Amino acid sequence: MNKPFYEQIAVIGTGMMGTSLALAIRKNGLCKTIIGIDKNFENLKAAKRLGAIDSYTDCLKDGIADAVLIIFAIPVLATFEVAKRIVYAVRKDAVITDIGSTKGELVHKMTGLFYGHSNYIGSHPITGTEKSGAINAVDSLYNGKKCIITPVEKTEQFAVDAIKKFWESIGSDIVVMDPYEHDRIMALVSHLPHVIAYALVGSVVEQQHAGSPVVKYAGGGLRDFTRIAGSDPVMWRDIFISNTREILAAIDQFSRTLERLRRMIQEKDMKGIHSFLENAKEVRRLLTDR
Amino acid sequence: MNKPFYEQIAVIGTGMMGTSLALAIRKNGLCKTIIGIDKNFENLKAAKRLGAIDSYTDCLKDGIADAVLIIFAIPVLATFEVAKRIVYAVRKDAVITDIGSTKGELVHKMTGLFYGHSNYIGSHPITGTEKSGAINAVDSLYNGKKCIITPVEKTEQFAVDAIKKFWESIGSDIVVMDPYEHDRIMALVSHLPHVIAYALVGSVVEQQHAGSPVVKYAGGGLRDFTRIAGSDPVMWRDIFISNTREILAAIDQFSRTLERLRRMIQEKDMKGIHSFLENAKEVRRLLTDR
Repeated sequence: MNKPFYEQIAVIGTGMMGTSLALAIRKNGLCKTIIGIDKNFENLKAAKRLGAIDSYTDCLKDGIADAVLIIFAIPVLATFEVAKRIVYAVRKDAVITDIGSTKGELVHKMTGLFYGHSNYIGSHPITGTEKSGAINAVDSLYNGKKCIITPVEKTEQFAVDAIKKFWESIGSDIVVMDPYEHDRIMALVSHLPHVIAYALVGSVVEQQHAGSPVVKYAGGGLRDFTRIAGSDPVMWRDIFISNTREILAAIDQFSRTLERLRRMIQEKDMKGIHSFLENAKEVRRLLTDR
Repeated sequence: MNKPFYEQIAVIGTGMMGTSLALAIRKNGLCKTIIGIDKNFENLKAAKRLGAIDSYTDCLKDGIADAVLIIFAIPVLATFEVAKRIVYAVRKDAVITDIGSTKGELVHKMTGLFYGHSNYIGSHPITGTEKSGAINAVDSLYNGKKCIITPVEKTEQFAVDAIKKFWESIGSDIVVMDPYEHDRIMALVSHLPHVIAYALVGSVVEQQHAGSPVVKYAGGGLRDFTRIAGSDPVMWRDIFISNTREILAAIDQFSRTLERLRRMIQEKDMKGIHSFLENAKEVRRLLTDR
């Protein structure tokens, strides 16, 4: 594969995800210059210090004016708000993408916004850590990971091809998916686990505050949940709010399953519980088979 | 501290936990001989091969006849059943313990069973992995970990002292606790997380079977849960059944918290969600402070 080369790339949002992406772009030699755009100068400075970006600014229009590839790496709800402010300033030949974790509504709005002005296509790299901030960036974050891209009818084919090539050049495996189908699947495999982890940890914190020193006895079980529940609150608030319908459906389905297991525990149904736990183990086989 | 030295130790159950314990005993030179007792010859052979035990048998009475320390390392419900079969065969000066994850009911029954025959005291080392079988044993499993011991009124003081010394000699930090208080705390920090993980994974497996290829998109969120839900089904079935009351209370409390978060998502309550997620993050501080 011959790698793409961009004169100038703008990364909007130099947190952990954006800065890691800039590092990967740099490492693979995909551009001449990268500009980091952020309101948070601590992140900008850290990204510069890490060599992820060549220069930085907090001025959106200056930052994106000459970019031929613009990547939004900010929380989902902020993405559309910021996009509205640059729509008349972007190059007509630029390719614009975002790395948000929800796609349905966002892709619909972003496609409409940029249609006729430039070329937007949604991306969702399936990667991340619970750490935030440019200082936690790593250049390997996207390497070997799936990246779902979500073109729609209005998306220009050249933008689809360009964004495919871009992600492949930093080592991601492309999956093409409808943005609403994406949200349905992610509600189950990613958003629901986060809702659950936040609720579980919230529940334990309540007990701790009620005077029971439970946290100091946390073994493996709770610890894994606290790691997930340590993820960035703004990012996850936005995900919860921008994929409400699917997440509520996933919560309700989970609650029914939990109620089934609860009843078996209440009835001390040895056989039922055992077969429930055996079935859950099966998912590990599915994960290995993929 | 001068380490204890036992002529003969019997470990009943040579799975991952029991064999790891035997390895730790060996490493610290705490006994002359260790006998492994199990119905599973694969585990027995693996434990012998690893040097964890000197000899093995599937005959309970032969195995424990000369032991001055007897450790049950089998699922909670099996522990009492097996104990009934050896009560007239144990040495009067032996110390007997178990490493089960629930204590209330078990300690009550075991104490009654051995009273006047020998000296039982409950233990619960707060450690483990999701792996099972002797082949997954590691000699460091108990080192640096908390071990809760649960003496009751009838427990002989010499047994309390002996078991403290024993666990400390393999590097565990002793916490003394009432067996029912133990079960209440563990329901929250360990049993509930497992119930939740099993239910979540069960819920996703249902979707997969319904024809939605969700599992292959599992990112960090779901993966952590599948690890927990990969724990030994028999062990966890027994825990669920032997700590029913506290686990049901914990599930109900969790469900109320989940419902609160669900409602905020449904109402797109940005402030409410954000503060909920920020609060959950706090548990990490509590975990570091302990």
